[in-house]
Amino acid sequence: MSTPSKGRLIGVGTGPGDPELLTLKAVRALLDADVIAHFLKRGRNGNARTIVTPHWQETAIELPLAYPVTTEIHRHDGAYKAQIAAFFEQSASQIAAHLDQGRTVAVLSEGDPFFYGSYMHIHVRLAPFYKTEVIPGITSLSGCWSQAGVPLMQGDDVFTVLPGTLSREDLAQRLATADSAVIMKVGGNLPKIRQALSDAGKLDTAIYVERGTMENALVLRLSERDDSPAPYFSQVLVPGWTGRP
Amino acid sequence: MSTPSKGRLIGVGTGPGDPELLTLKAVRALLDADVIAHFLKRGRNGNARTIVTPHWQETAIELPLAYPVTTEIHRHDGAYKAQIAAFFEQSASQIAAHLDQGRTVAVLSEGDPFFYGSYMHIHVRLAPFYKTEVIPGITSLSGCWSQAGVPLMQGDDVFTVLPGTLSREDLAQRLATADSAVIMKVGGNLPKIRQALSDAGKLDTAIYVERGTMENALVLRLSERDDSPAPYFSQVLVPGWTGRP
Ligand SMILES: C[S@@+](CC[C@H](N)C(=O)[O-])C[C@H]1O[C@@H](n2cnc3c(N)ncnc32)[C@H](O)[C@@H]1O
Ligand SMILES: C[S@@+](CC[C@H](N)C(=O)[O-])C[C@H]1O[C@@H](n2cnc3c(N)ncnc32)[C@H](O)[C@@H]1O
Repeated sequence: MSTPSKGRLIGVGTGPGDPELLTLKAVRALLDADVIAHFLKRGRNGNARTIVTPHWQETAIELPLAYPVTTEIHRHDGAYKAQIAAFFEQSASQIAAHLDQGRTVAVLSEGDPFFYGSYMHIHVRLAPFYKTEVIPGITSLSGCWSQAGVPLMQGDDVFTVLPGTLSREDLAQRLATADSAVIMKVGGNLPKIRQALSDAGKLDTAIYVERGTMENALVLRLSERDDSPAPYFSQVLVPGWTGRP
Repeated sequence: MSTPSKGRLIGVGTGPGDPELLTLKAVRALLDADVIAHFLKRGRNGNARTIVTPHWQETAIELPLAYPVTTEIHRHDGAYKAQIAAFFEQSASQIAAHLDQGRTVAVLSEGDPFFYGSYMHIHVRLAPFYKTEVIPGITSLSGCWSQAGVPLMQGDDVFTVLPGTLSREDLAQRLATADSAVIMKVGGNLPKIRQALSDAGKLDTAIYVERGTMENALVLRLSERDDSPAPYFSQVLVPGWTGRP
């Protein structure tokens, strides 16, 4: 008896929300896949899973990977880290079991897989052992600034991506030294983000984008947005370039 | 006689090179367009034009926009700036003439239109006057790090995009304070980029990517790349995150 040939792992970027922002390559990968894995948070369907629904093959085996914890434990807590690490280990083994059967496994990733995506945790564990391909996706950055119709950078500008979890001082200093920026992980950090932007003299031009490219997308000047917590899919655009050469 | 209704302007991101990295939305826009405009440099066909060839409609009117100057005049020179500004003005008028005839005009943009793209110069001139849509594209960032199979950032990492035209000191300082970075506009700046990465203690892990996602793509450790000038389509990846949580 021959051992089954090993399967192929594909990280598939689904883009930020609009199903038409899937690439031709991603659509083909979804049609070719024997197994489609996707991450989800307790209680809500994953965004990536929703985006690919029009291209879902009935014959595909679905492998949902549900995060064990989210907000109950603080993220710098050792217990949280251990639980998350165990979750990624276990997810990687589940995927590996399919790969060992010679199956092609597509792992969905909202936006671009290598841009702060959970897929990366699977990739580093399995890429050394299996044939692997990463299909880039439209990032939420591109989705949000295109939706807003606001160009951010040009020419020799420096552009920075900042997590809203940084301290006010750190945010302000980095905002002041970059020409343009996007602040992700907004959540409950809006008051602090606003202060940091004000410290850096960039509050007036900042734009708030919620659920960029999704049907219920929202674009506002940050000055028109109140300080109530932002949904998971939101970010703040800080334009540098303001027009003509 | 009724005046013709005004047409629609669409900035279309073509992705970094692989024609399969076009989005479904971009393909549809190419089929719908009456006019397809694209930028080119003297003597060479534009990358964006090449990427969309499989989706080119025979009936589409082609509007090539050829940059007047490139390297002959220094880019901080006043004469250069004036020539470039005049070129964008003239390109915008050519496009406006079609829009005024009620035509839908797609303007191709390599990668993502709003990520340092020439389309931005058309957008700021025409978007206030015409119905405008921007279709985001896969950036060269996503194309290059996916091609290399190297994840750069995760969690609360700060990520920065730097032009290789900055001074050694400025580059080194920004590389030292960001968790991860990509250096664009490599060109003749490789010796300086290498020194700055060394100053920042990040030379060993840097990756050089040439023509990411194109057929003749090249991925090397930067330490294996000599100092000869890099082609236009090249960048240096500086990973921060190096693996598991
Ligand atoms: C873990 S990161 C994932 C990023 C994703 N891989 C990408 O390519 O954009 C999650 C962050 O992405 C941002 N995000 C993702 N999708 C978004 C959308 N459709 N609109 C606004 N922000 C979004 C939010 O700021 C959120 O905190
Ligand atoms: C004017 S910017 C345009 C960026 C483009 N709009 C995008 O979304 O990536 C030109 C720079 O993009 C980078 N670039 C564009 N396409 C590339 C590719 N296929 N491979 C490597 N670098 C690329 C190079 O660093 C070059 O200096």
